[in-house]
Amino acid sequence: MASARGSARRLFLGLDVGATKTLVLLTQGRQRVLGQQLLTTAARDGPEAVVQQLLSAIDRVLVRVEARRQDVAGVGVGFAGWCDLQGTVLAAPNMTGWRSVPLRAILEELTGVPVAVGNDANMAALAEARMGAGRGFRDLVYVTVSTGIGGGIVAGGRLLMGASGMAGEIGHLVVAPDGPRCGCGSHGCLEAMASGSAIAREAHQRLALAPGSRASPIAAQEVFEWARAGDRGAQEVITRASRFLGIGLRNVVNLLNPQAIVIGGGLSQQWKEYVEPALQVMRAAASGGDEREVQVLPAALGERSTALGAILWLQRVLRHTARS
Amino acid sequence: MASARGSARRLFLGLDVGATKTLVLLTQGRQRVLGQQLLTTAARDGPEAVVQQLLSAIDRVLVRVEARRQDVAGVGVGFAGWCDLQGTVLAAPNMTGWRSVPLRAILEELTGVPVAVGNDANMAALAEARMGAGRGFRDLVYVTVSTGIGGGIVAGGRLLMGASGMAGEIGHLVVAPDGPRCGCGSHGCLEAMASGSAIAREAHQRLALAPGSRASPIAAQEVFEWARAGDRGAQEVITRASRFLGIGLRNVVNLLNPQAIVIGGGLSQQWKEYVEPALQVMRAAASGGDEREVQVLPAALGERSTALGAILWLQRVLRHTARS
Repeated sequence: MASARGSARRLFLGLDVGATKTLVLLTQGRQRVLGQQLLTTAARDGPEAVVQQLLSAIDRVLVRVEARRQDVAGVGVGFAGWCDLQGTVLAAPNMTGWRSVPLRAILEELTGVPVAVGNDANMAALAEARMGAGRGFRDLVYVTVSTGIGGGIVAGGRLLMGASGMAGEIGHLVVAPDGPRCGCGSHGCLEAMASGSAIAREAHQRLALAPGSRASPIAAQEVFEWARAGDRGAQEVITRASRFLGIGLRNVVNLLNPQAIVIGGGLSQQWKEYVEPALQVMRAAASGGDEREVQVLPAALGERSTALGAILWLQRVLRHTARS
Repeated sequence: MASARGSARRLFLGLDVGATKTLVLLTQGRQRVLGQQLLTTAARDGPEAVVQQLLSAIDRVLVRVEARRQDVAGVGVGFAGWCDLQGTVLAAPNMTGWRSVPLRAILEELTGVPVAVGNDANMAALAEARMGAGRGFRDLVYVTVSTGIGGGIVAGGRLLMGASGMAGEIGHLVVAPDGPRCGCGSHGCLEAMASGSAIAREAHQRLALAPGSRASPIAAQEVFEWARAGDRGAQEVITRASRFLGIGLRNVVNLLNPQAIVIGGGLSQQWKEYVEPALQVMRAAASGGDEREVQVLPAALGERSTALGAILWLQRVLRHTARS
C-alpha cells in the first residue's frame, strides 16, 4: 500500500455499512484507493457497538498507510437502512436498535471531520453513474439485487433524494398486491417477490411440501445450482422471481424513462438465468414502444460501489459547505 | 374580453389537445388569460384534420381579442399521447393516425412562431407545480385520474422528462400482473385497474353476469351514483379500483419520495368515495414510516392546467433558445 504522508486533508474515508459486512475504504481524491478493510458488522449489538467498530477500523486503515486522522478531509457513509437528509438513520430492518440514530452527528462528534450519510443503494447508484457502468448517462437507475433489492435514481446527472432522502426504494414497489408479506409491512413488494431471500423462501416452501423434504433453510445460490442441474421446481421458482423483477424494472422504465439501468448485487451474477429473462419481460410491451428503449448494463464497481459513492456524496456536501 | 393590441409578441397560445376535447388558451405573460376556445377534437379524422382545427381555433381566438398572429410569441401544446423531446407525437392510443407525427415542426412551419410540444399530463404537472396546488413544493408528483390515468413528476423544481421525454407514465405502472389487458399492451397497469374506463368495464362485466342484465355500456359516473344509492356491487367495484389507485400511489411514494402529490382529473371529484380510501391504502405501511409522509392535494387549475403548463413549457424553451 502507498504511503499517504504529507497529503494533509486530502484523504477520504468511504464506509459501506451493511447488515452483514462493513467495508472501510481510504482514498486520495475521488477514487485512488490507498487502503481498505472488510469486517463483519456487529449488527446485533446495537448502534454504539457498530460506531465503535467503525472508529477502530478507520484507525487501523489509517495506521496501515501511515496516515493520521488529521489527514482526513471527511467520512462518507452508505448505510443499509432508511436515512434522512440530515444523516439520521431512521430504521434499518436487518440491524438491531437502529431507530432514529443521528449517525452523521455522532460520527462528526467522534472523528472531528465532516461526515455525510446516505442509503447504501443510493450511494452505489451515484458511484456507478459517475465512475462505473453508468458513466456518460444523465438519466439512469441503479438496481441492486441480492438478499434484498435496493436502488437509486440519477436524474439529469444528479442523485434524486426526494423530500426526505428516501427516493429510490425500488425494492418496495408493490408488484403483487396479494403476494407474501415484505419486511417493510406491505405485501408483494418487489423485494418479497424477486430478491435472493424471496427465491430461497419460495424454494423452501416448495420443498417443505414435497415428500422427504429437508427442513434446513436454503440459500438462493443453491436454487440456481439445482436449476442448472435440471431441477424443474427450482427452475420454476427462478422463472417466477425473474418475471417479477421484469415487472418491477418495467415500472421503473414507465415512470422514469431512464437512458440506462445498471444492475448490481449478488444475483446480477446470474445474468443469463435470472436477469436476461427479466429484461425480456421488461421490454415486452413497454409503453411508448421502441422510443423508450433503455440500455441495461451490469454494475462495474463491484463491492466498492457503495463506499466510493459515499465519498462522492461527501465531496458534494463539502463543495456545498465551502460555497455557502 | 380584453383587447390585446399593442402587446407585440407578448401573447402566448396554450393548446390542450385531448382525444375528446381541445382547449385553446391565449394569455399575456404567464397566466393572464385573454381568450379561450373549447372544441371537439377531430380525433378520428387524422393528424391533418386536427392540425387544421388547431389553426382555425387559434385564428378565432386571436380575432376575438383583436390580436394578430404577429403578436404571438409562441405556441405550447400539451398532447394526449407519447411525445419525444423533439416534439414528435410517437403514438396517441385514442386518436386515429397519430404515429410519429412531427407536430412541433408542422406547427412551426404553419404558424411561423416557436412551438413546444409535450405530453398533456406532464404539462398539467408543470402548471400545478408552478401556479396551482403544488406551488412551493420542489418535489411533487401530479396524477390525473379520468378515463385514463396520467401523470408528471417534478423533481428539484424541474419537470422530469426522462431520456426521451416519456417519464411520468404513472398510469402504466403494473399493479396487478395477472389483471386485464391495458391499451398499452401490458396487463394490470394502474390505468387498467383504477381509471374511469376500468371502473366502467368492471361494472359492466358484473352487470352482464347478473340476471336481467343491461347490455349498454356504463359510465364511471353512473357507478358512483349507484354506489351512493347503496348498490353493493357498485360499491365493491369502486373499493377495488380505489385499492389499486392506492397501491399505485404508494409505488410512486416509495420510488420518488415526493413532498406532495397533486390529484386532478374527473375522478378526483369523487374525493371522499374514491381518493380518500386510496390514500389510506397508500399510507398503510409506506416504507420508511412517518418520515415519508406526503401531502396530498386536489388539483387547483381545473381544465386549464394542461394549456397553462404548455405555455410554461414553451416559455422555458424560449428562454433556453435566447441563452444559446
